[in-house]
Order: sequence, then structure tokens, then C-alpha cells
Amino acid sequence: MSPVTKKASNPSQLVVRIKLGGDAVFGPGKAELLESIDRLGSLSAAARAMRISYRQAWMLLDTMNQAFRGPLVETSQGGPGGGGAALTRLGKRILVCYRTLQRKAAESTHDDLAALLRLRATGLQPGLRKRPGSQRLRDHGSSG
Amino acid sequence: MSPVTKKASNPSQLVVRIKLGGDAVFGPGKAELLESIDRLGSLSAAARAMRISYRQAWMLLDTMNQAFRGPLVETSQGGPGGGGAALTRLGKRILVCYRTLQRKAAESTHDDLAALLRLRATGLQPGLRKRPGSQRLRDHGSSG
Repeated sequence: MSPVTKKASNPSQLVVRIKLGGDAVFGPGKAELLESIDRLGSLSAAARAMRISYRQAWMLLDTMNQAFRGPLVETSQGGPGGGGAALTRLGKRILVCYRTLQRKAAESTHDDLAALLRLRATGLQPGLRKRPGSQRLRDHGSSG
Repeated sequence: MSPVTKKASNPSQLVVRIKLGGDAVFGPGKAELLESIDRLGSLSAAARAMRISYRQAWMLLDTMNQAFRGPLVETSQGGPGGGGAALTRLGKRILVCYRTLQRKAAESTHDDLAALLRLRATGLQPGLRKRPGSQRLRDHGSSG
């Protein structure tokens, strides 16, 4: 199987979101923010890593903290590094839970996702299941 | 298990979308539109059923027809009923594929979704896993 063919069922093409009630939703963006905060220990560093504004990061965080009982992230002000941020125990649990859920969803739907993406790439062409070159090549073929 | 408790792991709280490349995405809205067209045989009737404007429905459809090779819906103009719409064979295949994928994702993540929603409803409260009345009651409790 070539890297290009493998690319057709890249699990990152499956996006999983959880409706939390009201307008609140937990999905890949919020999970990435939690992960970045956990890794970098700061909200502004997490925002930079995600290429979003500090304000956007703060608003994502605020939505999360409001949607759950108890904050998912605790921030400390001041100090030599200008304050920091860390996941609470609840924040860590939520993140682990979401990542597990996302992995299981991707695993269980792998074949159907590949089938759907194949339908997209080649349409309904009986007897012509593989068409080399029918998909756009990407430079980062080895990342699949 | 009460209807309210069951509600906490309602699979419809899991939203699954497929990135098709570029900005194109296939998710619950487009799937519902295809289903409504299949059921009602008309784009305007489908739009009414979904409580969206005809223009919105048309744009969803246009995005889909452009994202896939070949249209997912064929429309016929004129006639006594003012024209109709029907899924193409490709449209039917895409819809079945998405619904299968959605069902498998929901099945495989059922327990993790319940755990996440429980964390949302009750936070981290060791020894207090069930708190009757801690979730907002809904009028349509029997629909879960």
C-alpha cells in the first residue's frame, strides 16, 4: 500500500465532538488546547503553539470551565515567568476520556471511513477501484 | 435505570464529521438533508422539514455535489409538483456509509461518552457516582 493510498483513510479526517448540552461542545480544538497547556504550562504559550490569539484561547477555556463543574485548568498569576497554567485533575480526566473516545471511534470506523473517502475520490466506478494518480499527491506522504 | 440517567449517554451527543479535504466536511447536517430528500422527494420539502431556508439547503447540496465526483442528488424541474429531487446511487452509498460509520463510532465509544458526560454532570466526586436530580430534567425524558 503506497503512502498516498494510506492517506485516504487517515484517522485525523474523522472529527469527533461531544455535545455537552446547551451550545457547549467538546471537540478537537479544546482537547488540543488542554494538551498544549499541559505540555507548555502556560495559556499564552499554548495559544501561540496553536496559532490562535490569547483571547481565543481564553474564551475556549472559559467555555470549558463553564460547561463542566469545576475548572479544567488552573492559572496562577505573576511570578518570574509571568504566571502559568496547569490542568486540574478534572481537566486531565476529561482529556484522557476524550482521547480514548476519539481513538476508539477512529479504530471502529477505519474501514467505513476509507470506503467513504474512496467514494469521494473515485465515485462509483465498478471495476475501477484503484486509480493511481487520481488523488492529489501531497508533499508529506510519509506522515500517514 | 431512569430515563434521565439513560439520557446521559444518548448517542446523539456524539457528533461525527468527515473532513473531505479543503474546507469540505460531511456531517450530521448533510446526512440529514440527504435523508430528508430521499424521504420527501423534494429539496424544498426537505428544507422545510429541517427548518432551514431553501437557500441553505441548496448551498449544503451544492457543497456536497462539488466535494464528490458526480452529484449526490438529482433534481428535476417543472411538472405538476413543481419539480423533485432524488438521491443518486452515489448519494445513497455515501449516506449508508456515513450512517454505518456513525453507528459504529457511537457503539464503540458508548462507555467513554457516558463517563465524560458523568464527569461533566458531577465532576470528580469520589464515592458519589450517582446523584439523582443532579442533572437537569427534560420534558422529553422518554425519547432516550
